[in-house]
Amino acid sequence: MTPIVKAILANYESDNPGVKANLARILMQGKLGGTGKLIILPVDQGFEHGPARSFAVNPAAYDPHYHYQLAIDAGLSAYAAPLGMIEAGADTFAGQIPTILKVNSSNSWATSISQAITGTVDDALRLGCSAIGFTIYPGSDGIFDAMNEIREMSAEAKAVGIATVIWSYPRGGKLTKDGELALDVGAYAAHMAALLGAHIIKVKLPTDHIEQAEAQKAYEGHDWSSQSDRVRHVVQSCFNGRRIVVFSGGAAKGADAVYQDAIDVRDGGGNGSIIGRNTFQRERGEALAMLDKLVSIYKGEQ
Amino acid sequence: MTPIVKAILANYESDNPGVKANLARILMQGKLGGTGKLIILPVDQGFEHGPARSFAVNPAAYDPHYHYQLAIDAGLSAYAAPLGMIEAGADTFAGQIPTILKVNSSNSWATSISQAITGTVDDALRLGCSAIGFTIYPGSDGIFDAMNEIREMSAEAKAVGIATVIWSYPRGGKLTKDGELALDVGAYAAHMAALLGAHIIKVKLPTDHIEQAEAQKAYEGHDWSSQSDRVRHVVQSCFNGRRIVVFSGGAAKGADAVYQDAIDVRDGGGNGSIIGRNTFQRERGEALAMLDKLVSIYKGEQ
Amino acid sequence: MTPIVKAILANYESDNPGVKANLARILMQGKLGGTGKLIILPVDQGFEHGPARSFAVNPAAYDPHYHYQLAIDAGLSAYAAPLGMIEAGADTFAGQIPTILKVNSSNSWATSISQAITGTVDDALRLGCSAIGFTIYPGSDGIFDAMNEIREMSAEAKAVGIATVIWSYPRGGKLTKDGELALDVGAYAAHMAALLGAHIIKVKLPTDHIEQAEAQKAYEGHDWSSQSDRVRHVVQSCFNGRRIVVFSGGAAKGADAVYQDAIDVRDGGGNGSIIGRNTFQRERGEALAMLDKLVSIYKGEQ
Amino acid sequence: MTPIVKAILANYESDNPGVKANLARILMQGKLGGTGKLIILPVDQGFEHGPARSFAVNPAAYDPHYHYQLAIDAGLSAYAAPLGMIEAGADTFAGQIPTILKVNSSNSWATSISQAITGTVDDALRLGCSAIGFTIYPGSDGIFDAMNEIREMSAEAKAVGIATVIWSYPRGGKLTKDGELALDVGAYAAHMAALLGAHIIKVKLPTDHIEQAEAQKAYEGHDWSSQSDRVRHVVQSCFNGRRIVVFSGGAAKGADAVYQDAIDVRDGGGNGSIIGRNTFQRERGEALAMLDKLVSIYKGEQ
Amino acid sequence: MTPIVKAILANYESDNPGVKANLARILMQGKLGGTGKLIILPVDQGFEHGPARSFAVNPAAYDPHYHYQLAIDAGLSAYAAPLGMIEAGADTFAGQIPTILKVNSSNSWATSISQAITGTVDDALRLGCSAIGFTIYPGSDGIFDAMNEIREMSAEAKAVGIATVIWSYPRGGKLTKDGELALDVGAYAAHMAALLGAHIIKVKLPTDHIEQAEAQKAYEGHDWSSQSDRVRHVVQSCFNGRRIVVFSGGAAKGADAVYQDAIDVRDGGGNGSIIGRNTFQRERGEALAMLDKLVSIYKGEQ
Repeated sequence: MTPIVKAILANYESDNPGVKANLARILMQGKLGGTGKLIILPVDQGFEHGPARSFAVNPAAYDPHYHYQLAIDAGLSAYAAPLGMIEAGADTFAGQIPTILKVNSSNSWATSISQAITGTVDDALRLGCSAIGFTIYPGSDGIFDAMNEIREMSAEAKAVGIATVIWSYPRGGKLTKDGELALDVGAYAAHMAALLGAHIIKVKLPTDHIEQAEAQKAYEGHDWSSQSDRVRHVVQSCFNGRRIVVFSGGAAKGADAVYQDAIDVRDGGGNGSIIGRNTFQRERGEALAMLDKLVSIYKGEQ
Repeated sequence: MTPIVKAILANYESDNPGVKANLARILMQGKLGGTGKLIILPVDQGFEHGPARSFAVNPAAYDPHYHYQLAIDAGLSAYAAPLGMIEAGADTFAGQIPTILKVNSSNSWATSISQAITGTVDDALRLGCSAIGFTIYPGSDGIFDAMNEIREMSAEAKAVGIATVIWSYPRGGKLTKDGELALDVGAYAAHMAALLGAHIIKVKLPTDHIEQAEAQKAYEGHDWSSQSDRVRHVVQSCFNGRRIVVFSGGAAKGADAVYQDAIDVRDGGGNGSIIGRNTFQRERGEALAMLDKLVSIYKGEQ
Repeated sequence: MTPIVKAILANYESDNPGVKANLARILMQGKLGGTGKLIILPVDQGFEHGPARSFAVNPAAYDPHYHYQLAIDAGLSAYAAPLGMIEAGADTFAGQIPTILKVNSSNSWATSISQAITGTVDDALRLGCSAIGFTIYPGSDGIFDAMNEIREMSAEAKAVGIATVIWSYPRGGKLTKDGELALDVGAYAAHMAALLGAHIIKVKLPTDHIEQAEAQKAYEGHDWSSQSDRVRHVVQSCFNGRRIVVFSGGAAKGADAVYQDAIDVRDGGGNGSIIGRNTFQRERGEALAMLDKLVSIYKGEQ
Repeated sequence: MTPIVKAILANYESDNPGVKANLARILMQGKLGGTGKLIILPVDQGFEHGPARSFAVNPAAYDPHYHYQLAIDAGLSAYAAPLGMIEAGADTFAGQIPTILKVNSSNSWATSISQAITGTVDDALRLGCSAIGFTIYPGSDGIFDAMNEIREMSAEAKAVGIATVIWSYPRGGKLTKDGELALDVGAYAAHMAALLGAHIIKVKLPTDHIEQAEAQKAYEGHDWSSQSDRVRHVVQSCFNGRRIVVFSGGAAKGADAVYQDAIDVRDGGGNGSIIGRNTFQRERGEALAMLDKLVSIYKGEQ
Repeated sequence: MTPIVKAILANYESDNPGVKANLARILMQGKLGGTGKLIILPVDQGFEHGPARSFAVNPAAYDPHYHYQLAIDAGLSAYAAPLGMIEAGADTFAGQIPTILKVNSSNSWATSISQAITGTVDDALRLGCSAIGFTIYPGSDGIFDAMNEIREMSAEAKAVGIATVIWSYPRGGKLTKDGELALDVGAYAAHMAALLGAHIIKVKLPTDHIEQAEAQKAYEGHDWSSQSDRVRHVVQSCFNGRRIVVFSGGAAKGADAVYQDAIDVRDGGGNGSIIGRNTFQRERGEALAMLDKLVSIYKGEQ
């Protein structure tokens, strides 16, 4: 265990050795092992967008084994997916990479801004996962119900040594479309995840828009045009850096934009990237090259 | 156990020997035993359409024993029905054919697109069933609740060695009537069932309609007029063939159409048919002849 | 135990000896004991219509003991009532007549077509009841919830040897007022009760109206003007006679009409009557005479 | 134990010795001990109307100890109050007077005709209470939920020897304002409480209004202008006197009206009064004098 | 233990030694230890208003350790915060100051007047907290649900020796904006918290507005312009002083106003202040000076 990982773990004051061991597994895994940085491969787009929109561009990706192998070969920190995807490779790849069981899911036809619970802590245990992953939609009508759910599941997970990752995506209710990516909104959403007891917080990279009238004053007097500054503010909002924060890359886009995001996350003190479509929707060789470059960015080599 | 059945079972990496034994019972049963193909007789139309619409055309079918005996005599792989139907023959036919307890049901007078839970895993155990069957309506307002239900029941079933069959029928919400049978919709629905942890997935044979605007691009550049191609895409969407997929025949229709469907399922790599009204709404001799021909299609003899 | 009762019990293939013993108690009780026919006295009108509308015409009936004694003296098969009514005589009349605890109830002021759960299987056990009675309203908005409730309660009852009686009364939703008593609707409602796992099914005597357009075809080609033919169809819809079916008499009416109903039930192969207001709203001597005649009808003596 | 109390207890045929002992404690307590009559002091107006409206007129009543002491000094049968009020004196007055824990409560700002559960059977046990008290609003949209709640709580209470008191107050839905106090409505509400398994039923004194068109016939041919006759009908509706029925006095009013009500309850065969604001909103000396006179009325001395 | 603290604890007649010990810990802690007065630092504004609005003015406050240390260095009685905030310092500051786990939370984007449960009694136990804190909104549509929740949690807490603090903030429904701070409303809200079984009641300082027409009479004949008189009425409404009542300071404001509030609370017999934004939104030195002066006010030195 490196000093930097020890220092990160020390911030989880209330957690038992089981949870810390699972966080350590993620932080010590792969090419970024021991650096305090991490890259996670999430594959829940099949639920969110359907199989063809997710995998037709790279048909090998229809096979759940493809993603396990990609994450392992790229030397990533962890692989996150819903129940069926994890079950389909849990034995073949057991012990080769930490897995995060995505325990709730939405889909393209949802008629409310909400999610179904599609996995449990017991599933995580029987499948050898290191963490559960849960999405909340702060701002939505159902947010209190979702908070009740993650509070229950997270408490259960902590008791059995499983870590909790919260995807905090503001949506719905009083929020405008621009507001969903606003800096104040993103920082607030990250802070809520921290307050809910998340060990790892996943948010989107925020824009420099400020959504809430009441929050304008708190953001005045600073130029928020720098993305790394915005990352720094989100990290600060997660207990001043006492919680691991990773940023998602969004829809597939040009490689340079992906690299710049990672540079900004790194420079702003973020812990890493969670990157799905930008990898598995590229051909495997291309994806491995991109992930290799991201690793080197997080290592500070670029 | 044949090599092909062993290969299929090996795909269920996370399941305990109890579940695998029940899947094996179904795959080794009857005339298709050992081929990796299967035909299931489902009789839940009494719940869905009422007794007279289901059985008046063939009054012998009012008796629950009729269906057990038909499935056994035709050498089918399994018999699926709601609680009362299974209870009424559970002792007489114990051990003669694997049964699937249909644990939720709708009816013709339903005022919402939803189902009642009408059986449980405990019922499946006490009645000696090999699997539970559960219908979801992706697209409907109640889909998240239904997913919560099957997640709970499926987890309970897996723990006691009972397999899970999911009927995935898109309906309601944003979906058009044509969309319910669209290729992209059917593949997505099948994929959701796989993600939910189903061992066997039951869907309808899709048309070549593409429903979702966002999915058009993923289906471009391929001619989807071949039904076997569409079957192949659905199978691909079920973890690239790592899950058993069976297709339903729909309302009673001409025998030739039934045979063509089976040929297309076979040629597209599907695992078989689940065929109800097309058998029990025919006279018994005629039904046995049809089922015999279907068996021979799946055996590749025709 | 008579051969006819043994034959009826044999139809309950999945039930444990406890449930069968309780069914046997009802079938072997009173003047119809051993004939396979039964008459049940139900007194839940206090809940449904209030005390004065139910009992003012025969004030002795305000006393719960009155009904126990009437059922015993008339040699009936069982007495059914809500919690308080059973509690008020459970000790005095213990062992003298099988009791059915009515575990859900509505009332005249209900603002939805639904019922409250007002008794439990544990209550049935501590009060020495042989069965629980539960009303469902197929067609109503709340039917799925009600089915969930009876599934839970019935499973619990079966496990401890208590039988289940389902009152299946179509109401609400898409059904017209005439439709509530239609032949197709009544047969469907009875079939649903059977599918839900009921041991004894209680329905109303249907008219010859056919409600559902989709069901017209199934009923064509037969003249349904004979009430005994309609009874026969309902019995057929209950697993071709594998389940006990009793018919209710409705509001108080002339004695001759009551007798004719019983004759038709008998001739159509129904198992008997459940008759409340037509007895306890008559003076005791008159009621005993009427019940005596009904017994003799079911015995085939008239 | 007096013969009259023994006779009352004998009506509770299904109850265990624990429940009977608690009913006996109430019936043998204070100045009316052994007479079969009872007076209960209820102090839940703080929840219903707020502290100032309840206690400002007699500020000593802000102190929970005041009410315990008043009930003890007046020789009443029991003291009923919500959780906090009971907790605040449970130790000081332990064993000095039977207490009834009011386990649900509404308030003046409620936006629905409903109540919150604010105490439990476990609370009743740890606080040494003899009974739980629960309010239902027959006629309201939420009545089925409330019935489900009291069924659960009452079953739990009966199992541990705690008695159940139901406040049955018709409100809302189809009922008119006048109808809430109508004779037919009050008798029906009392009957429902009896059917729900209440040991003690609390209703308001009814007027001679008949609310329900369908019930008119049942009340014809009798002049209902006598309040004691109306009390007698309510008692009859409670299993013909097999259940204890007490009547509430309503808002503070002149002493003579209070006495006349008690005389009518006594003459109509009711078991007593539950009287709150008419006592604690009077100065203590005055209240004690009034209660003394009520005792003497129920003893038949006036 | 001082006589005044012993006297306060004696009012909690029904509580076990575990709860009393935790109340004693709070009452004996810090500079006000033993005086019967208390000052609590609450930091739940991150949930309610977001991180930037709460902490940007004093960036050191982004760190959860800052608040623990501030409360300890200022010699306060307890520190209250949501799950994540407590977890982040639970080990470093274990045993240095009693903590109150805020177990429900709202946020600025809520679309209903309600809260999510974000912590549990089990969390309080594992984190070494002395109490749970729960907010209710009397007047809101969801108040009955909230009361059900706190009743459950409070019962669970009492059983394991954890004290209960209720934040009672009238909002919504029939209440006007002015009404939320009205004297009658505040006293009623405090009384409800007492009835619900709270050990410590937190309300806002009320204005002299009387909201409820029905309550006007009860407040007539007294001049309510004195804030200390209003405090005295609230204390009286909490079982005549048998429960600890603390008052919140509201939004950050001038120091003199803060001091005057404390003087009025003290003079009106209140037990102290719960003061958040007025301290942590000031620079640390300034906050410590203010808290020191508040302590001296409550000690009666000023």
